[in-house]
Amino acid sequence: METSATVDLEAIRAEIFRLDREWATTASLGKDLERVLSFWSEDAQVFPPGAPAVVGKAAIRAYVGATFGKPDFSVWWETSGVTVSPSGDFAYAVGRNRFTFPGPDGKPMAAHGKVVTIWHNDPLLGWRCVIDIWNDDPAPSA
Amino acid sequence: METSATVDLEAIRAEIFRLDREWATTASLGKDLERVLSFWSEDAQVFPPGAPAVVGKAAIRAYVGATFGKPDFSVWWETSGVTVSPSGDFAYAVGRNRFTFPGPDGKPMAAHGKVVTIWHNDPLLGWRCVIDIWNDDPAPSA
Repeated sequence: METSATVDLEAIRAEIFRLDREWATTASLGKDLERVLSFWSEDAQVFPPGAPAVVGKAAIRAYVGATFGKPDFSVWWETSGVTVSPSGDFAYAVGRNRFTFPGPDGKPMAAHGKVVTIWHNDPLLGWRCVIDIWNDDPAPSA
Repeated sequence: METSATVDLEAIRAEIFRLDREWATTASLGKDLERVLSFWSEDAQVFPPGAPAVVGKAAIRAYVGATFGKPDFSVWWETSGVTVSPSGDFAYAVGRNRFTFPGPDGKPMAAHGKVVTIWHNDPLLGWRCVIDIWNDDPAPSA
């Protein structure tokens, strides 16, 4: 077990930014569901606004798969900050996201939000997202 | 610097559960704003649904203080799970919360939600909440 003195926290931070960008790009393209799912841990918990918690890879596969790649749905996100724990075994990221989906009248709508993800370093798989939660930005003024 | 072998992760987990219960009780009583604020770190980030991010203790004081202790507002939460990083320097908690507030017609309304908090161990102050985000549960069926 390494102590914090031997851990390159800046390299971990850059790695999580890189993984997160790759994840966001893959998700926004809407083509490779299994690749998108691979960024979550097997026991990850996803907390969508206005919906029950989605716990574990199988439930996340069903949740994401229901809209993934459909022309009326899209997701995009951008991480602005990554904080790594002093020992380098946990990290969290904050950023913004945007979903587009069909509105009540069938016309496309967009939801913009704030997002927090928590990452752990799996000894075999590397960094994976274990917690994923977001909520809406303020409603645009009329 | 300690390695993980010397850290009692179960004791840390129990400590965060204890702190969180004390925090929730203090907040729900609506009497001691400064005590409530003391559980967040100075640089904590709070992400309320439908509102901008609230960053830093001064902004959190203004945000919480605007409704704290008013008879029409209340907050309650309960943490169901705490996960501590292997080295014991970070932790996160998941749970449920409930806010009550005056509705558009002045009658009291309640919002139930899912909440995630991230905690770090301040060398001087002990465990403090650095990230606090929640969102709504599914709307009750009519």
